[in-house]
Amino acid sequence: MTLRVGVIGTGIMGADHAAILNAHVPGAEVTVLADTDVPRAQAVADGIPGARVLADAHALITSDDVDAVLVASSDATHVEYVLACLEVGKPVLCEKPLAPTSAECARVVEAESALVGGGDPLVSVGFMRRFDPGYVELKDLLGGGALGVALMVHSTGRSVSAVLGSSEFTVTGSAIHDFDIVPWLLDSPVVEVAWLAPRQSPDVTDRQDPQLMLLRTGDGVLSTVDVFLNARYGYDVRCEIVGSRSTASLSEPHRIERAEALTQGHAYAADWRPRFADAYRLQNQAWVGSLVRGERSPLPTARDGLQAALVAEAVIESMHSGGDFVRVSPPT
Amino acid sequence: MTLRVGVIGTGIMGADHAAILNAHVPGAEVTVLADTDVPRAQAVADGIPGARVLADAHALITSDDVDAVLVASSDATHVEYVLACLEVGKPVLCEKPLAPTSAECARVVEAESALVGGGDPLVSVGFMRRFDPGYVELKDLLGGGALGVALMVHSTGRSVSAVLGSSEFTVTGSAIHDFDIVPWLLDSPVVEVAWLAPRQSPDVTDRQDPQLMLLRTGDGVLSTVDVFLNARYGYDVRCEIVGSRSTASLSEPHRIERAEALTQGHAYAADWRPRFADAYRLQNQAWVGSLVRGERSPLPTARDGLQAALVAEAVIESMHSGGDFVRVSPPT
Amino acid sequence: MTLRVGVIGTGIMGADHAAILNAHVPGAEVTVLADTDVPRAQAVADGIPGARVLADAHALITSDDVDAVLVASSDATHVEYVLACLEVGKPVLCEKPLAPTSAECARVVEAESALVGGGDPLVSVGFMRRFDPGYVELKDLLGGGALGVALMVHSTGRSVSAVLGSSEFTVTGSAIHDFDIVPWLLDSPVVEVAWLAPRQSPDVTDRQDPQLMLLRTGDGVLSTVDVFLNARYGYDVRCEIVGSRSTASLSEPHRIERAEALTQGHAYAADWRPRFADAYRLQNQAWVGSLVRGERSPLPTARDGLQAALVAEAVIESMHSGGDFVRVSPPT
Amino acid sequence: MTLRVGVIGTGIMGADHAAILNAHVPGAEVTVLADTDVPRAQAVADGIPGARVLADAHALITSDDVDAVLVASSDATHVEYVLACLEVGKPVLCEKPLAPTSAECARVVEAESALVGGGDPLVSVGFMRRFDPGYVELKDLLGGGALGVALMVHSTGRSVSAVLGSSEFTVTGSAIHDFDIVPWLLDSPVVEVAWLAPRQSPDVTDRQDPQLMLLRTGDGVLSTVDVFLNARYGYDVRCEIVGSRSTASLSEPHRIERAEALTQGHAYAADWRPRFADAYRLQNQAWVGSLVRGERSPLPTARDGLQAALVAEAVIESMHSGGDFVRVSPPT
Repeated sequence: MTLRVGVIGTGIMGADHAAILNAHVPGAEVTVLADTDVPRAQAVADGIPGARVLADAHALITSDDVDAVLVASSDATHVEYVLACLEVGKPVLCEKPLAPTSAECARVVEAESALVGGGDPLVSVGFMRRFDPGYVELKDLLGGGALGVALMVHSTGRSVSAVLGSSEFTVTGSAIHDFDIVPWLLDSPVVEVAWLAPRQSPDVTDRQDPQLMLLRTGDGVLSTVDVFLNARYGYDVRCEIVGSRSTASLSEPHRIERAEALTQGHAYAADWRPRFADAYRLQNQAWVGSLVRGERSPLPTARDGLQAALVAEAVIESMHSGGDFVRVSPPT
Repeated sequence: MTLRVGVIGTGIMGADHAAILNAHVPGAEVTVLADTDVPRAQAVADGIPGARVLADAHALITSDDVDAVLVASSDATHVEYVLACLEVGKPVLCEKPLAPTSAECARVVEAESALVGGGDPLVSVGFMRRFDPGYVELKDLLGGGALGVALMVHSTGRSVSAVLGSSEFTVTGSAIHDFDIVPWLLDSPVVEVAWLAPRQSPDVTDRQDPQLMLLRTGDGVLSTVDVFLNARYGYDVRCEIVGSRSTASLSEPHRIERAEALTQGHAYAADWRPRFADAYRLQNQAWVGSLVRGERSPLPTARDGLQAALVAEAVIESMHSGGDFVRVSPPT
Repeated sequence: MTLRVGVIGTGIMGADHAAILNAHVPGAEVTVLADTDVPRAQAVADGIPGARVLADAHALITSDDVDAVLVASSDATHVEYVLACLEVGKPVLCEKPLAPTSAECARVVEAESALVGGGDPLVSVGFMRRFDPGYVELKDLLGGGALGVALMVHSTGRSVSAVLGSSEFTVTGSAIHDFDIVPWLLDSPVVEVAWLAPRQSPDVTDRQDPQLMLLRTGDGVLSTVDVFLNARYGYDVRCEIVGSRSTASLSEPHRIERAEALTQGHAYAADWRPRFADAYRLQNQAWVGSLVRGERSPLPTARDGLQAALVAEAVIESMHSGGDFVRVSPPT
Repeated sequence: MTLRVGVIGTGIMGADHAAILNAHVPGAEVTVLADTDVPRAQAVADGIPGARVLADAHALITSDDVDAVLVASSDATHVEYVLACLEVGKPVLCEKPLAPTSAECARVVEAESALVGGGDPLVSVGFMRRFDPGYVELKDLLGGGALGVALMVHSTGRSVSAVLGSSEFTVTGSAIHDFDIVPWLLDSPVVEVAWLAPRQSPDVTDRQDPQLMLLRTGDGVLSTVDVFLNARYGYDVRCEIVGSRSTASLSEPHRIERAEALTQGHAYAADWRPRFADAYRLQNQAWVGSLVRGERSPLPTARDGLQAALVAEAVIESMHSGGDFVRVSPPT
């Protein structure tokens, strides 16, 4: 059986998703691409046999040749399209964040709950790190007891440069990954957070950069989240779990070691795509595979998207209040 | 369009290929598995929706629901099945080696040539290292001039332990990978070889282990090939290209760094499967994709299989003559 | 010229200092060792040609054959011996901490100031990390502009296990190194600190372990100090300076890479001695060399010892107040 | 007691030795420096309190204020000065090679034997790698059985660039280190060698560069020696012992890891001095210490120098005969 997928949004993320679904995901067929920028969508469609283009995302959602929808449009439009998918009962994979605010996330959770009750959810959220083989191995090590009890997590996210945005957007657009992955690793929700400003990079004017956040999970573990979006030197995601018996860390992935010009080293990824190529591929395979087999999606749910949004809002409250610890509201 | 693939042989290699085709290769459908050990084949088939089992490989080859064949049976049977595929004009991907002897490889080359002439070849050979992202990056670096001119290659292949076999089998079954990948990296054929015996491992009785081979390619580059099949410590494949301006080496792939018991380190693969999982997946995707699109297969050809067999025979001649350099016969 | 050194205290630290002075420091001669545990002192003296033993540290300080004193006795006795050295005008190198409290440190600063005024100080403090070649290279990189502007420092100190002690003793006995090295690296004093409790290790009962401290220096840089004394896995000191242009980190020192039992890795030091052997040697050489040449000691001063003690006291105040940020008192 | 050392030759090596003796070797006093280039010698002497300069090395050797001699003049002069030291019965540490030819080395061995018979030797040879902590740890691991039985050694020596010299000079001036360290590690003499020419670097005209040598020791171990003097990328010395149970390799020493410009890496040494600073220091300490204590020097002897020269001559014979294996003559 083949799952016919419609992709909304053909920017960097949407184009990447469409290409992955087409080239690497058995059982998926990208049938429709929607973007208000039709020529951009058409350029992506040209690389995908059988794909057609629509300007209207709602038309894609209701198309007869679309069994499931992947939403990769701008953050502000996510909720509208996800709710539209729910209305016609089609499964949807929504890029993170599910929505910029917890209130909007809650609307999705409620709409889905009204529709499916205790049945399999229709909404999946693209926190793809859960499918990165490195994070999976970290979680397995911890779960298997090899580390003893987790005591601290040090999570680091740095990129070469960032498009214009506010300090708050660093939290909702980037650190949101940490707000999902840390509690997932620990299997314990974030209950308390604080936000701190390191010295400001002299090259950055639009936002506080870097930022340091502290997360306390229900199990007592204290995590540091170091986010620096204009770090210049490379795309660098690190995670160390400090356990009572030993520690485990993500390795910086690379395939080649170079010896050149008095330096031994290897290249950083320039952005997230090579770093998380496996994660996106395996996430999309898991999503499509579960739908093809009629099974429950193993991806994060709308509720996970809501949880991360609540953490983000508590972090922003700490930012605005001078760095105090702030309790995270439980999802209602 | 879907390519219906029949897999001959359901040992470790065949089972792995069938699973990869089923789970990770868009456009492929594994329809038939053949093995004289029918229960073993059935166990593999149980994990693949729609696959059925045959005891007779020739019946698989001629089945109406098989568009292309993957041969992963024991080395000695390769030629028989590949020739049978040629007889019915079906594309075939044969695990390495194409055959244990160059004479048999030459029979395949001739049979294929008689059938397709200058057209697209039907036979592909599973030297999957050419699809390993690390080797690809090495070749790209060299081709792009980053290393200057290649002067030496150091290729190392070690495994934890080996099943019973002769010294010659180390050459035809393991080092054969190096005889393909080194000239591919350098884009120059192996013209001369020598075989040397390091001190024998006291734990090994069936063969000389380790072995050291020297390869001279047409461009003058001298390569060392260090093969140690009972190395105990892990599955470890290395390759360094020493260039006139700089060097590049494969990194030992790993995702997690551990700090435990007074050691900082990471795990080796226990065998080739995790190490070359990407290579097998990408090779099989490339093979299926080319067939689905009606394009020429980008995989190594029967002629590449013959070339590697000729190098292996020269190495064995050196082994039997006390380590002299031996010229490699050109393929006729 | 030869500097005749008396060493007070012949526990692990004192024995190590005496051996280093004897074997690796040109110009130094260890003439007297003092310890209330005379047999222990004698065992050390047996390895040092010409060294004799005294039970009374004050007798050592006033001995005619002692030109300079190295204090490596228990922390609580440091001030008494340092003040006694000042009384007789002899140079003294005191192991860290100069004293457990800032008040005692201030007494030393005042006594020295009364004695030498603006002249060369007599008291040096053994914050040996300033002589570790790795920290020196870090400071040079930052000072030379290679990192851009420093924005964050991540300092980590972990050991296999700790002798019985309180949470406060982690701060005054271990983290005190970070309170000296971070402002030294940044050339900016610590002005504000906070102390946080990660999840408690279930194996530790005498103190909070691990601990996470935050330091704000006058330049705005925010530093994290992660101290875990019963980390089990090894002696592991890390330091990363995150700059606006690039980052630099201490490498984990090791000489040998091992491939064994499915692991590639290298050994951690079991304690601080191998890790900081170069630092102690170079520190002691610098101290003796400056005295032999009649130059000002390049080691940290009593004032540096006071500064670190003031930071420690602010950290402990934060510990007792539930993690609030606390201002560091300026030295008077 | 102080050992008054005279240093012959004040080029890079001699200046370095004098500085090391002066700053890092307890018990040594550099009293005289000899060089036909007197201003060069004076410049070195200016940094060493109490050192004076002579133009005539023989005058240094016979000076009353010289107890022992370190010969760091050009290779061709070594034997003359070493023999002169023997004539006056003074201990001498001669930089490697002891002499360019085995015949000259044999003259030294004979002269020393005639003088001291079975007593403690007077001549030490500066194969400093035996004092490098990395090589020492390698030898200890092998000796302690951690690797099982040694089967192969891969020794690599690369430098940024070389001064003008012949192919033979690569052997006698650089690979000579490997001819000493490999049999020392294995505790077995080199009995057979071969020399092979990889592809020639297009940037090098004075000699074959790189070169690949094969050494067979009496225990059957086969070692590869890869020497590339104009490797451009850095000063890089590697050594891997492949054992029957596990392997151990020298780590590339570095103190700082940098993340910059899309690269994670660390610096290579530009030449041998930083790489082997510890080795030179510890070698010179061991030499001086043994003399001060009246003990037998733990450094390599004239006979070790002769052995390495005999290996070098066999390698050069192989070079001139087209790569055949050549037996190493036993020292007479």
